[in-house]
Amino acid sequence: MAVYQATTSAPVNIACIKYWGKRDTKLILPTNSSLSVTLDQDHLRSTTTSRADPSFSKDRLWLNGKEEEIKEGGRTATCIKEMKSLRKQVEDANPNEPKLSTYPVHICSRNNFPTAAGLASSAAGFAALVSSLAALYALPASPSQLSLISRQGSGSACRSLFGGFVAWEMGTAADGSDSYAVEVAPQSHWPEIHALICVVSDDKKGTSSTAGMQRTVETSPLLQHRIKHVVPERMKAIKEAILAKDFDTFAKITMQDSNQFHAVALDTDPPIFYMNDVSRAIIALIVEYNRLSVENGGKVKAAYTYDAGPNAVIYTPKENLKEIIPLILKYFPQAEKYNDHLGLFGTASVDGAVPAGFNEAVAKQFPVGAVKGLITTRVGDGPRVLGAEEALIGPDGFPKQLA
Amino acid sequence: MAVYQATTSAPVNIACIKYWGKRDTKLILPTNSSLSVTLDQDHLRSTTTSRADPSFSKDRLWLNGKEEEIKEGGRTATCIKEMKSLRKQVEDANPNEPKLSTYPVHICSRNNFPTAAGLASSAAGFAALVSSLAALYALPASPSQLSLISRQGSGSACRSLFGGFVAWEMGTAADGSDSYAVEVAPQSHWPEIHALICVVSDDKKGTSSTAGMQRTVETSPLLQHRIKHVVPERMKAIKEAILAKDFDTFAKITMQDSNQFHAVALDTDPPIFYMNDVSRAIIALIVEYNRLSVENGGKVKAAYTYDAGPNAVIYTPKENLKEIIPLILKYFPQAEKYNDHLGLFGTASVDGAVPAGFNEAVAKQFPVGAVKGLITTRVGDGPRVLGAEEALIGPDGFPKQLA
Repeated sequence: MAVYQATTSAPVNIACIKYWGKRDTKLILPTNSSLSVTLDQDHLRSTTTSRADPSFSKDRLWLNGKEEEIKEGGRTATCIKEMKSLRKQVEDANPNEPKLSTYPVHICSRNNFPTAAGLASSAAGFAALVSSLAALYALPASPSQLSLISRQGSGSACRSLFGGFVAWEMGTAADGSDSYAVEVAPQSHWPEIHALICVVSDDKKGTSSTAGMQRTVETSPLLQHRIKHVVPERMKAIKEAILAKDFDTFAKITMQDSNQFHAVALDTDPPIFYMNDVSRAIIALIVEYNRLSVENGGKVKAAYTYDAGPNAVIYTPKENLKEIIPLILKYFPQAEKYNDHLGLFGTASVDGAVPAGFNEAVAKQFPVGAVKGLITTRVGDGPRVLGAEEALIGPDGFPKQLA
Repeated sequence: MAVYQATTSAPVNIACIKYWGKRDTKLILPTNSSLSVTLDQDHLRSTTTSRADPSFSKDRLWLNGKEEEIKEGGRTATCIKEMKSLRKQVEDANPNEPKLSTYPVHICSRNNFPTAAGLASSAAGFAALVSSLAALYALPASPSQLSLISRQGSGSACRSLFGGFVAWEMGTAADGSDSYAVEVAPQSHWPEIHALICVVSDDKKGTSSTAGMQRTVETSPLLQHRIKHVVPERMKAIKEAILAKDFDTFAKITMQDSNQFHAVALDTDPPIFYMNDVSRAIIALIVEYNRLSVENGGKVKAAYTYDAGPNAVIYTPKENLKEIIPLILKYFPQAEKYNDHLGLFGTASVDGAVPAGFNEAVAKQFPVGAVKGLITTRVGDGPRVLGAEEALIGPDGFPKQLA
């Protein structure tokens, strides 16, 4: 009996132009286009193994070792159904193909980062799910075509189908057929772009992005102006900046759009806050860091951006990390030594420090734990098909027990 | 020799529809109309004595006991010059009037609250300055006419020329002649409106409102939409709510407009933050307090609003203070006992408590000092002319030494 199984990994992406608001909540069609940087799967990834077998009783899903119910009509069920439907087209066109579309699937998925870190795990998760089924079913679909399906799992998941710099074009069709991701530039175009993720502690659970964005759509008078007038211009300008590798412009737009997303969240009734005092302090540090550079005749050197939570993602060309990491360590002392897995600092020890001329009064020093971890990564590639040795499903068709 | 001297007090006002942005920075003409509640001078006031004397060498000003330079062409100089010019008209029409407009003035002003409290001291201060000169000069000017002048001292000072509920109509004239305050309703119309001010500690000095609002005008794409489309509707709706004593609508608009003001501050480049984690927690408490009421078939019972700083002002009909004060005390324990100067609680001790059904998880309890003081007050009257016994200037024409 043949084994039909495939394993893929998919990356996290962090938006520079933010997705916030759906015009169709079932199909997950956004109220504006968005654009993100795909982060390197060497550091952050979801890995998924999918297996089709006529002996399975039903479709089943395990996330990080725990079985999750696949709710009928829910987002996971929709993605599986759409993927089976694409497989059916292959089978209809090639009668010799095994009828995998009729077999139940077992899907096993793991993130290599804690869900509690507040990173966009659902984007990587649904991208890995769709990619693994595409590999299992040997589909001829392009990443853009697959993004139409992952979008229905989690909107921003459509952008994790590509590496590099990725736009999600909102489209206009009522059926969502033109609302998909496209590559603006591959990883290789601008590999200097790195990201420092500051994982920020938060006392309270924020509003979920699904609930929050719809409350913004319903109540924020400012959102409509953002959608109609601001985002279209910014999408155009940031794409040009990426193609020209103009970090200064890229950074300014990224920061402005992060701020505007949080502004419309605050303009929501009742208001939504995702950033806290630690997030604000990190913004103050990056603003001062850039001011110092610009006043000395230089350019903007770093861009902060915040998703629906307090974590900061700082985009910067690699060369600046040697300044930014000590800067963050100075204000946010860490319990553990900085893990220099990129070899930025050689054998030198990495201590807190501010650049010469930096106005240290822009923020206070926080206690250990305010920033509970730092993750250094960079722009990365799109989903990867992995070898059988990385499969998460064992010969029995069930999740392997991991050590 | 006659003594020409007058003493007045003027109130603080806290806006419900926020003033943020100037179309003319010299004349202080706003980009949108605004509306405020005047707070009771029994609790918060600026007191000013003005004296005109031909023997004085020049115009001089003392604020809270310290002499301040009157900069040529500055805001204080402009207000004094305009007031002298109105006096000159009186003298020209009545040749028997003493020529006070030609005498230098000594002006002595005090606030009864610490400037460090972050309350709108400049509004009360310029309103008291203009009122005291108007009394000194025996001007026939109406409060609206005087508001044209206090506006040039500090924009929001124009609203402190009236008690009750006050609109600052932005006007359209280039010379500012139609940008003044009008009374929407007097204090006596709706005396039930009370205010609880939570004075919030802040680690860092925020952006000054003068600098901040112009940066918003220059960089926020959302501000223009607020100015053109949102504020005009809200002005109309909140005036109707005040006239109808419809607290539910008044409160909703007040909270929405506070949030939108902070949203456009955040949409500024670099972003401006005035609220901190304590401010956010107070919002969460009021949102939950209102939710509890509305879900039990009631109405919105309290409205938070924040100016250019972290302090919360909570507007509520008097009857709710007996719930709101214990609620705030529960989450923000105070070093000192609550000063029940309004006699809300009778002989009962005032302890922290939440209403039945309140979801206590919406905020964490903060340490003593996070809210460093509570001030309970209510809607109040306009500037008052005080008796000679309250003068701040002594017989020698200089500030009295206060104990």
